[in-house]
Amino acid sequence: MEKKTLLTHCSDAPGLISKITNICYKHQLNIIHNNEFVDNASGHFFMRTELEGYFNDQTFLADLDQALPEGTKRRLVSSERKRIVILVTKESHCLGDILMKTYDGSLNVEIAAVVGNYDTLQSLTEKFDIPYHHVSHVDLSREEHEQKVMEAIAPYAPDLLVLAKYMRVLTPNFVEQYHHKIVNIHHSFLPAFIGAKPYQQAYDRGVKIIGATAHYVTNDLDEGPIIKQDVIPVDHNFSAKDMAQAGRDVEKNVLSKALNKVLNDHVFVYGNKTVIL
Amino acid sequence: MEKKTLLTHCSDAPGLISKITNICYKHQLNIIHNNEFVDNASGHFFMRTELEGYFNDQTFLADLDQALPEGTKRRLVSSERKRIVILVTKESHCLGDILMKTYDGSLNVEIAAVVGNYDTLQSLTEKFDIPYHHVSHVDLSREEHEQKVMEAIAPYAPDLLVLAKYMRVLTPNFVEQYHHKIVNIHHSFLPAFIGAKPYQQAYDRGVKIIGATAHYVTNDLDEGPIIKQDVIPVDHNFSAKDMAQAGRDVEKNVLSKALNKVLNDHVFVYGNKTVIL
Amino acid sequence: MEKKTLLTHCSDAPGLISKITNICYKHQLNIIHNNEFVDNASGHFFMRTELEGYFNDQTFLADLDQALPEGTKRRLVSSERKRIVILVTKESHCLGDILMKTYDGSLNVEIAAVVGNYDTLQSLTEKFDIPYHHVSHVDLSREEHEQKVMEAIAPYAPDLLVLAKYMRVLTPNFVEQYHHKIVNIHHSFLPAFIGAKPYQQAYDRGVKIIGATAHYVTNDLDEGPIIKQDVIPVDHNFSAKDMAQAGRDVEKNVLSKALNKVLNDHVFVYGNKTVIL
Amino acid sequence: MEKKTLLTHCSDAPGLISKITNICYKHQLNIIHNNEFVDNASGHFFMRTELEGYFNDQTFLADLDQALPEGTKRRLVSSERKRIVILVTKESHCLGDILMKTYDGSLNVEIAAVVGNYDTLQSLTEKFDIPYHHVSHVDLSREEHEQKVMEAIAPYAPDLLVLAKYMRVLTPNFVEQYHHKIVNIHHSFLPAFIGAKPYQQAYDRGVKIIGATAHYVTNDLDEGPIIKQDVIPVDHNFSAKDMAQAGRDVEKNVLSKALNKVLNDHVFVYGNKTVIL
Repeated sequence: MEKKTLLTHCSDAPGLISKITNICYKHQLNIIHNNEFVDNASGHFFMRTELEGYFNDQTFLADLDQALPEGTKRRLVSSERKRIVILVTKESHCLGDILMKTYDGSLNVEIAAVVGNYDTLQSLTEKFDIPYHHVSHVDLSREEHEQKVMEAIAPYAPDLLVLAKYMRVLTPNFVEQYHHKIVNIHHSFLPAFIGAKPYQQAYDRGVKIIGATAHYVTNDLDEGPIIKQDVIPVDHNFSAKDMAQAGRDVEKNVLSKALNKVLNDHVFVYGNKTVIL
Repeated sequence: MEKKTLLTHCSDAPGLISKITNICYKHQLNIIHNNEFVDNASGHFFMRTELEGYFNDQTFLADLDQALPEGTKRRLVSSERKRIVILVTKESHCLGDILMKTYDGSLNVEIAAVVGNYDTLQSLTEKFDIPYHHVSHVDLSREEHEQKVMEAIAPYAPDLLVLAKYMRVLTPNFVEQYHHKIVNIHHSFLPAFIGAKPYQQAYDRGVKIIGATAHYVTNDLDEGPIIKQDVIPVDHNFSAKDMAQAGRDVEKNVLSKALNKVLNDHVFVYGNKTVIL
Repeated sequence: MEKKTLLTHCSDAPGLISKITNICYKHQLNIIHNNEFVDNASGHFFMRTELEGYFNDQTFLADLDQALPEGTKRRLVSSERKRIVILVTKESHCLGDILMKTYDGSLNVEIAAVVGNYDTLQSLTEKFDIPYHHVSHVDLSREEHEQKVMEAIAPYAPDLLVLAKYMRVLTPNFVEQYHHKIVNIHHSFLPAFIGAKPYQQAYDRGVKIIGATAHYVTNDLDEGPIIKQDVIPVDHNFSAKDMAQAGRDVEKNVLSKALNKVLNDHVFVYGNKTVIL
Repeated sequence: MEKKTLLTHCSDAPGLISKITNICYKHQLNIIHNNEFVDNASGHFFMRTELEGYFNDQTFLADLDQALPEGTKRRLVSSERKRIVILVTKESHCLGDILMKTYDGSLNVEIAAVVGNYDTLQSLTEKFDIPYHHVSHVDLSREEHEQKVMEAIAPYAPDLLVLAKYMRVLTPNFVEQYHHKIVNIHHSFLPAFIGAKPYQQAYDRGVKIIGATAHYVTNDLDEGPIIKQDVIPVDHNFSAKDMAQAGRDVEKNVLSKALNKVLNDHVFVYGNKTVIL
């Protein structure tokens, strides 16, 4: 017996749940969990079905394709652990959290490698016997540096790239190569404090709450589909530096919660939004 | 076109979702929202289905009964507003919150009447043109008093009784008459601080969090199925009285969130627990 | 014995706490609570001291003025209930919450009157025996309307104006007349979603959190000093309308928490920020 | 210039703040932060004062002792990093979190050693170049095992012991030797679910919230002074095992927040409670 997850996204129509579950039943696939969502505003239907049984992927998917409306996107995903590459700069809290959660099994993932534009985090990474690639950006153009980063990543053929406080902007070329496969953690509750130094901005504005946002990277900086956000209260006692310090816990928690959803195939990207089932 | 909600609870078996959604499809009932849950530990299946269409209740339910395992509990509930009677003593915060949320439409309910063992809250209730019955317990045995309370309630034939800080223990006789139809707000995160004066107990123990619990009333005091719980942080600055004051906001929020779930048919009671879909 | 609160704000210097508490001690005023804060970035000192005893305001303040640096702002505030006027448009949730919390004593305030540019909330206000002034803006210029609003407010000489979902922008003239005496509730976690229809903006952006901000009103729209913010999680199930509905609880909670701080003299306004002691 | 923290705890009396701050002023010690609390119920006064300057500890403390009531407990604590020994069994999440937060500097502490009754966590500990002592309890009486544990700890002369999911009960003899110097993380919001298998208990009761409690260890099991508590929501989807998994994040967060307070001298123990300034 195997476990797989079926992700279906199509135009809404009467009887979709009935059709899909009929086909599962016909193929003797047992439904462990099922969630669906209809976006009434746009008429889109989303369904995530965890299945258990003996799969004949080809005939199962063929039956689905025949039954579902044209243009349906459906994926049947195995429950194998995904492989990720993590990009970092100098800050250790998000990387450290992912390393530790992978070590203790609370994050279901294989960390293939870590790539950093400084060597600051090499020692931490190697404690966990994971290869670290130091790809310095010094004396290189953005394009040249990214080329080297891509060369470092490519051999690992990762399912997902994780920007764990990677402080460099990616070019459209890079983003295209990993379409909806790059997750970033941004240190503010977007869309507040877009751009540089969000904690300084938050301090200057005198806010009483700061937060963090995990999102897919697109070519519009800080504008990609949001996966997860969370916040913590601050007050007048917090300097901009204190806010950054306080923000670190939120950042790493938000990032690892987002990764949990992405790595276990709960996330549909849809326009500039996510549907998380 | 009408809207109704189908609540199904039965032993788990292969193909249940498929069977139920097929029957909906056959009856041309459109599924607006659907949620299901399987309790693998006990092998129970729960499904809540919001439907839209032209209903023939009798044939629809007959089809379901034929398709589903023996012993299935299923209810088809209209989307009409439920009617409640509220029982109170002296504290106004929960009653006031329900009155105001009903007034502004954020709680979808008809308050048929308020019954109190003091007249403290008569004036507040009548501001909203709702009948208030003052049923004093003075000089009466518990049974005599309850008899009068039941006589005050009966003409309204409520779908639900709400104990909004009603500070008297109900007898088994009363509880039986309103089986799984009484919701109480308890001023602690049960099972901590069961019994009298929970805020004093919390103060004495030096806890850093206090909370509230909305639950169905059963004959085991403070032991009924929990619907909703929430907490707030406290610290050494809080006296027992401050904790009680701070707890009021949590109490009323927890109660009205629980009522929202109950009144909109999201709650299955199952053993001593709730499944909320 | 009386209770008063001393609010001191001056440049930081060595020995300030010692000087102020010495003078309290000399005047036989007992310190019930004391909080201080030094903003090291700007070198400002803030202290809030709750005192109990027999006050000779004149000699006490004279002693303080002699001991403290030039330019010190200090206020000795009696613990009498403040008087407010509430401005509203059509939505009842914030007004209703303030009315109810005032009724049950959890908000320590006297509501002198409610002024609305519609008559929608007249009936609700009058349930609580509070005068309602319907000042329609129809066929009036902004200045003409505001003139009438000010005339309605003036006789009550309020300590504070509360904009409880008052959906009109105030002119600089109005704001000046009530300098740091107007508290507004804004339906977003500022500075995100400044401007009109914040819930629609939040929906369009696909955020996973929405919030509310209580702030003093200044001439920079949505830019005044923030007093309190809070948020709640949302997800793909929420339409823009659902977000607005869900936001109402946050709005009223944030507003009443902010009012609690302001009405009990915990808030210093300082540049475009607040220090809350 | 040095930084030290003065912790004062005595019976309440008029003028205490004034007396203490006068002595600081006289010794040209600048007050960076100051917090005080009076427990009116018991008439106790607590004050925590962060000082900066050139300290003559002996004369400063002598001046304080002369000025303050008899029986006053006062400590002048240097801002040096504390030294801890961590006790563990098999679960890695709390240990891992402390190791990582110490590594990245967000926990201001020196981990002298880790002692475990299994060798499960030896490899993780040694990644961070910290000595691990495997002291098996197999074939030993509780007293014999504890004797060996104490021998392993003693050479490090720790300021604090941290029980990071150490699943063995300590004897009164052990607890006495480290009076108010042992911090434990308990996997429930005490006093709910005292004793063994709290997550199973929580599951059986059908609670909607689970939590964790960091507390000082005393001879009354699960009854020591509480330092920090936090909770997370759960629902019918959570098995007992899921609850334990979900609880791990809360456990480690609560423990590290408690340690932060203890290690930076914010915590007074007082009867069976804590005052955290």
